[in-house]
Amino acid sequence: MAIKTVVWGENVHEHTNEVVARMYPNGMHNAIADALNEDARIAATTATLQESEHGLSEARLADTDVLIWWGHCAHGDVQDEIVDRIQRRVLEGMGLIVLHSGHFSKIFKRMLGTTCSLKWREAGERERLWVVNPGHPIALGLGEYIELEHEEMYGEPFSVPNPDEVVFISAFEGGEVFRSGLTYKRGNGNIFYFRPGHETYPTYYNEDVRQVLRNATVWAKHHGKFWIEEDGPNVPPEKAPNPVTVKGEGLHKPGEKGFK
Amino acid sequence: MAIKTVVWGENVHEHTNEVVARMYPNGMHNAIADALNEDARIAATTATLQESEHGLSEARLADTDVLIWWGHCAHGDVQDEIVDRIQRRVLEGMGLIVLHSGHFSKIFKRMLGTTCSLKWREAGERERLWVVNPGHPIALGLGEYIELEHEEMYGEPFSVPNPDEVVFISAFEGGEVFRSGLTYKRGNGNIFYFRPGHETYPTYYNEDVRQVLRNATVWAKHHGKFWIEEDGPNVPPEKAPNPVTVKGEGLHKPGEKGFK
Amino acid sequence: MAIKTVVWGENVHEHTNEVVARMYPNGMHNAIADALNEDARIAATTATLQESEHGLSEARLADTDVLIWWGHCAHGDVQDEIVDRIQRRVLEGMGLIVLHSGHFSKIFKRMLGTTCSLKWREAGERERLWVVNPGHPIALGLGEYIELEHEEMYGEPFSVPNPDEVVFISAFEGGEVFRSGLTYKRGNGNIFYFRPGHETYPTYYNEDVRQVLRNATVWAKHHGKFWIEEDGPNVPPEKAPNPVTVKGEGLHKPGEKGFK
Amino acid sequence: MAIKTVVWGENVHEHTNEVVARMYPNGMHNAIADALNEDARIAATTATLQESEHGLSEARLADTDVLIWWGHCAHGDVQDEIVDRIQRRVLEGMGLIVLHSGHFSKIFKRMLGTTCSLKWREAGERERLWVVNPGHPIALGLGEYIELEHEEMYGEPFSVPNPDEVVFISAFEGGEVFRSGLTYKRGNGNIFYFRPGHETYPTYYNEDVRQVLRNATVWAKHHGKFWIEEDGPNVPPEKAPNPVTVKGEGLHKPGEKGFK
Repeated sequence: MAIKTVVWGENVHEHTNEVVARMYPNGMHNAIADALNEDARIAATTATLQESEHGLSEARLADTDVLIWWGHCAHGDVQDEIVDRIQRRVLEGMGLIVLHSGHFSKIFKRMLGTTCSLKWREAGERERLWVVNPGHPIALGLGEYIELEHEEMYGEPFSVPNPDEVVFISAFEGGEVFRSGLTYKRGNGNIFYFRPGHETYPTYYNEDVRQVLRNATVWAKHHGKFWIEEDGPNVPPEKAPNPVTVKGEGLHKPGEKGFK
Repeated sequence: MAIKTVVWGENVHEHTNEVVARMYPNGMHNAIADALNEDARIAATTATLQESEHGLSEARLADTDVLIWWGHCAHGDVQDEIVDRIQRRVLEGMGLIVLHSGHFSKIFKRMLGTTCSLKWREAGERERLWVVNPGHPIALGLGEYIELEHEEMYGEPFSVPNPDEVVFISAFEGGEVFRSGLTYKRGNGNIFYFRPGHETYPTYYNEDVRQVLRNATVWAKHHGKFWIEEDGPNVPPEKAPNPVTVKGEGLHKPGEKGFK
Repeated sequence: MAIKTVVWGENVHEHTNEVVARMYPNGMHNAIADALNEDARIAATTATLQESEHGLSEARLADTDVLIWWGHCAHGDVQDEIVDRIQRRVLEGMGLIVLHSGHFSKIFKRMLGTTCSLKWREAGERERLWVVNPGHPIALGLGEYIELEHEEMYGEPFSVPNPDEVVFISAFEGGEVFRSGLTYKRGNGNIFYFRPGHETYPTYYNEDVRQVLRNATVWAKHHGKFWIEEDGPNVPPEKAPNPVTVKGEGLHKPGEKGFK
Repeated sequence: MAIKTVVWGENVHEHTNEVVARMYPNGMHNAIADALNEDARIAATTATLQESEHGLSEARLADTDVLIWWGHCAHGDVQDEIVDRIQRRVLEGMGLIVLHSGHFSKIFKRMLGTTCSLKWREAGERERLWVVNPGHPIALGLGEYIELEHEEMYGEPFSVPNPDEVVFISAFEGGEVFRSGLTYKRGNGNIFYFRPGHETYPTYYNEDVRQVLRNATVWAKHHGKFWIEEDGPNVPPEKAPNPVTVKGEGLHKPGEKGFK
């Protein structure tokens, strides 16, 4: 069965900036979803900021294997309640792929616990993403590096926790470097951050970039049980694997819920 | 110079529960601070929920090397603004030691990005904390295990990201196991979670536990530069290490701040 | 296509110890391979110490997706040349599952770089393997814990590098604990260590244990490109992505191989 | 008390190559030791391949806090017995700093379990080592990057396990990138790999490089108990924390050593 994938787009600059409107006339989210749907293993649809619940209802997330996130100028407009919901679903096992300026999105900072800050420069300079992990499933079908003629520069330090794996490191024309493809596991959720994708450049039409998006979607799908526990369940003495007799004094009455 | 340490106590059950009041007549935070101050390398003071800004003003945190956190029934009463402030300071380099029921504190969940849930049982059962990393600085001076006659049980699964290091694993009389001493690094901040410390038992008077608290404080102190970047600084083309000429079209006017 | 799996058995105690011979009349390797072959996704065969090249020729390893290793009293009889060969193949992408006393095998110590030591006791005591990562693909189909009536005890400290993930933690009747299911990635190879399996007990007939073996085999299969580089390839100046003119003085003549 | 540091130099090219002899007339090991001894917290001496036991007797290693390793053309001449000895001591708690071409040394490959391969080019090109972890103790006193006018290029993929932390990433004039400062912990030993240091360039006279060497030495010193266990100690039933009666049949007679 195909991997149910939702491409979430902020969908603002496509309507307010003439360059972006020209570059992505159907919205960036549709350009990305088109790339994914070239692979028969993936079934991608889209959601945007402007939809009710940002297009991410409980029911829809419950039926999503992988969520892809592109946002930039409107991170603050994403409702906290929806961020809570996405976080819970990622911990349960939904894959999460965060693109480019999504490094400052609420959901990415929430999952990682750090500022996710970096340096930047918008000069349309050349970026080469070196494949530092050529056997990684996310790098399937690529050469030694991906070359993009025009991209925004992101420079280290990238303020994130040490990743599980580094798949790409970028070198920019101006001299800076950046860890451009990073994996994390949080709960059961596989998380991938992929750097390129400034909205004024044709990055999401690049064949290598599209290949990475497809590879990452297949990689991010969870293959275990979807599972989350938030509430700190009590195990009463009579249910302990070894017999336990209550000793000492306590706070809680039998059957009482824990504090949270 | 001594390590400036603040022991934060929720300080509620000491005033509302007769067992706790009897066990820790000066408050748990003072029992913990006393343990730390037995070590000349540490200078510990206390702060509580009830103080203005919970005792954690910007100025005080800026002058704190290590913060120790004990909370249980009032996690929800900690102001989000103070949690933001602590998080920022940990990322800068302040050490953070989270004790026992602090696993559900806002600051711990914030730093780790997961639910931090676990199973529990309050039956005063025996806990043995096996030292699984005997050469770790936090285990200095301990034997093969710490034995506590009466403790609350915490059982796996403990829903946290894979730690950098596991120092202790507990076995409980009832049969459950738990990773009881875990280290993380987030930004420059060294984080240690230490399981024992239920308020109705005399855990913080145990000599081994007190030794762990001292060891962990010394371990948690940051020895590099205190540093944080939150705002995504721009590097203009003329400041790039290699000369860059702006190409293509862009979003931002020269000197404009990035979105956040 | 089924996952080509080789179960390697030391195959000594089955012929020298009457208890083991009775317990595993066809050899432990065949009992394990039988468990795997109950899953249509897996095609398991066996190899033993006594065969030529220990049954692990270059050609056979090149055609193997996952290798499972059980050894105990004859670690020293495994030829170093075969260990080199296995290591190379794991780095390329072959999965490796190391069982029980294989913690002291040459290949496990080679991959991890540590002593892999632990405490032990042979008393047929009860072991419970708690599932600490219930959403992990290796834990599919299990309950809260696996219970084995008779097993050898392994106790912490287990002298291995911090794992990528902990799937199981054991509690033994005698009180000790042990990290019983650990994952590592080395090169492209997924490595899983699984603790139970003492040869005088019927562990490999336990249904939960057999399920774990199947799950782990499916998990260990590599889904990226099989790739290894050992020789430090030279990139001559004229092949650099940016034009480079040789400056300063050097050691190597053009085209010379590097030292190794 | 000062950190007892041994700088190990292969000491071959200084005597066989005219460029290297001119650049490091007292040997590279002495240039490095001089850099360390500028810091009163460090007491550095040297050892070389040509000395008896390569200058690394059991007694000397037992009295060493941190070992620094530079080798290139004679990795194969280092005796395996001495490598075993160093490995054991690192696992016990001795710090290990591996420099430049030491990536292919026996001890580095032994500790990490991978090929440690990389791409290279000797063209005297410019290297910039970006500080990706500005708060790390190893980066104390540095600016945004270290710039070296002439260095050998090392390019990704660097075939090592995912590091605990990345401190530097290099960008080379020719376009390649490389993770140039990596930390690992194996047993109790803190390990740091630092890329620069080709013998035909004056890298070890660079003030920033010398600062990194000093910082790394202070960082690498172990602050816990020196501890190693190699032999798999037995815990007899009567010494178990909980009373155990032997059940089932076994392999071992009481008091017998385990297999290894």
